[in-house]
Amino acid sequence: MSFGWTRHAADGAARAGTLHTAHGDIATPVFMPVGTAGTVKAMTADAVRSTGAGLVLGNTYHLMLRPGADRVAALGGLHRFMDWPGPILTDSGGFQVMSLAGLRKMDEDGVTFRSHLDGTSHRLTPEISTAIQDQLDATITMAFDECTPFPATEPEVRKSMELSMRWAARSRAAFRPRTGYGQFGIVQGGVHPELRARSVDALKPLGFEGYAIGGLAVGEGQAAMFATLGSTVPLLPPGQPRYLMGVGTPDDLVGSVLRGVDMFDCVMPTRAGRTARAYTSGGVLNMRNARHSDDGAPLDPGCPCPGCTRHSRAYLHHLFRAGEILGPMLLTWHNLTYYQSLMRGMRAAILDGGLAEHAASIRAAWRASAGPVEDVLLPDQERA
Amino acid sequence: MSFGWTRHAADGAARAGTLHTAHGDIATPVFMPVGTAGTVKAMTADAVRSTGAGLVLGNTYHLMLRPGADRVAALGGLHRFMDWPGPILTDSGGFQVMSLAGLRKMDEDGVTFRSHLDGTSHRLTPEISTAIQDQLDATITMAFDECTPFPATEPEVRKSMELSMRWAARSRAAFRPRTGYGQFGIVQGGVHPELRARSVDALKPLGFEGYAIGGLAVGEGQAAMFATLGSTVPLLPPGQPRYLMGVGTPDDLVGSVLRGVDMFDCVMPTRAGRTARAYTSGGVLNMRNARHSDDGAPLDPGCPCPGCTRHSRAYLHHLFRAGEILGPMLLTWHNLTYYQSLMRGMRAAILDGGLAEHAASIRAAWRASAGPVEDVLLPDQERA
Repeated sequence: MSFGWTRHAADGAARAGTLHTAHGDIATPVFMPVGTAGTVKAMTADAVRSTGAGLVLGNTYHLMLRPGADRVAALGGLHRFMDWPGPILTDSGGFQVMSLAGLRKMDEDGVTFRSHLDGTSHRLTPEISTAIQDQLDATITMAFDECTPFPATEPEVRKSMELSMRWAARSRAAFRPRTGYGQFGIVQGGVHPELRARSVDALKPLGFEGYAIGGLAVGEGQAAMFATLGSTVPLLPPGQPRYLMGVGTPDDLVGSVLRGVDMFDCVMPTRAGRTARAYTSGGVLNMRNARHSDDGAPLDPGCPCPGCTRHSRAYLHHLFRAGEILGPMLLTWHNLTYYQSLMRGMRAAILDGGLAEHAASIRAAWRASAGPVEDVLLPDQERA
Repeated sequence: MSFGWTRHAADGAARAGTLHTAHGDIATPVFMPVGTAGTVKAMTADAVRSTGAGLVLGNTYHLMLRPGADRVAALGGLHRFMDWPGPILTDSGGFQVMSLAGLRKMDEDGVTFRSHLDGTSHRLTPEISTAIQDQLDATITMAFDECTPFPATEPEVRKSMELSMRWAARSRAAFRPRTGYGQFGIVQGGVHPELRARSVDALKPLGFEGYAIGGLAVGEGQAAMFATLGSTVPLLPPGQPRYLMGVGTPDDLVGSVLRGVDMFDCVMPTRAGRTARAYTSGGVLNMRNARHSDDGAPLDPGCPCPGCTRHSRAYLHHLFRAGEILGPMLLTWHNLTYYQSLMRGMRAAILDGGLAEHAASIRAAWRASAGPVEDVLLPDQERA
């Protein structure tokens, strides 16, 4: 099966499609759970599958340091290591390395950095990152780029974007083509439409199998992010998948799908699940809040996850109060189920040509939620 | 279905049977996973069921303090709260209260103690403990007793046992009979055969549905424990179940089944699972040990748990090194699966009349394990 994306329907800018890979087909729009260190935190692989997830993300930075890419390769690759025969996308390590302020030194060729685990010195370049992702057996390899800091001046953003475009060309040259595998280039340029356009122009001739939009959700706010998507997405080739990296809240996903994005990843549903925050069709709940302590109702009545079908809000509340591991387990499971159901619902609406109405109805349900203000956050309040 | 135990076969002192309860039948000998605070730690209820477990234990002390017995009752009882429609045995709270040195005050009537959570004052008596277990909807209620400290002089043990026997009579009087529910008395008397015999004599006329042996595995050593079982178990009514509380290692279970015990509970498999210790057919392994880091073989080749069928030793090692929650999840799952499989194997051997040979072969496999001394402990070395 050769790597590619088929468009089944469009509804305004939004698209419903299927991503074809060596490790199976994936319906888009798609949300990828984050499996940083070879595990989606607090979830077995079977549990992740039961949420409807088909594509997961692995982090090159974490995996190269521990257990090491050589070791993963010797053990049969990341799919076998983490029991995920389905497709896996790996990031390039660039984002994590850039956030190691003081522990890294960048030059034209790449980045030298010290491990946050043991202080040992390591190096990432476009060639090394691409080779590591190959060792991990990533279905989708990401180009190595610099994640531009925010805020930054326009000249700083330009310089960073131009470096990333030179690295994109080197990443592409280093990529070993295999049937059913692909590599995505990453559009940079901050919140500057003309820099984003130049970045797209630089990437297109390289022939990537898909395009990511990087450098967003780093503090610019949802309005600036949506504006950037509005100007950038239409420049991308219509027949290839578009991936918005590191995004986001449920409301971010709705707004970005409406603007033509096909793929997402974010730690939010998993991290929130470990800290008692529940994403539901009625908004965001803090399960530590005492008002749940006697509530025999399910967290989200329509949700098929075991936390909702087998247990009460009172039980989930109890688990977090008691510090029981099952609290993070069940709430992560719920949040990922909610995210998958959100994506499935949007895909069905696109196929029916009714995404705008569907999005309005999802948002109305969030806003109609009856909880007290301190407990219920509308999803788009979180980024403030 | 009325509460009772049917004996299908005996092999020496060992018995194979079925426990009949309002919440289903349980094959004995049986090991009960410990669900202290309404959850078997790091396991969903489905995962616990998948290990083959049918009967679980809840802790009255923990549940009365948080979330509170009234609340559990209002939410439909412990079965519904923790998604365990099968039988549940609750302890009386006595053991935990007794270990609150400095925070408790005992008198003839009962114990007043301070919560380890918030310092609030609480009281347990035979009547209160029995009523709380009723509120929790325990299938099997335990009599409230004093867990005799170890070491203790013979007069101290005698005095403590006699108090427990007075409390046993009050517990029995406070028990509300319901079809399919039962209450067990607890034999005390330390390692003194004549005190144990007196304790049995005191309990028998009270008409309990089963008998527990308490006050063992508290530091006396395996030999003294087995000797006490050897003198005490034959005194118990042959047609009723026998439960050895808080025991133990796999080797303890084998030795105790050989001596006629039918029921066990212990935190060992779950606690060990959270601290990287694996119980296997080849002995006990420490999954943090670096020798597992490149080992692509399964932890225990014949084991049906997901940690063994889906992953390598190298992956389990990686999860514990990386501090991932999935490590404790998978290893708890494995250890409970191992314990259930150990019990099933012994039951089959009793039915076949070959328990002694079976026990010898299990122990030989533990001893034949090829690991380095610091990594592989024979199960009976742990208690030293």
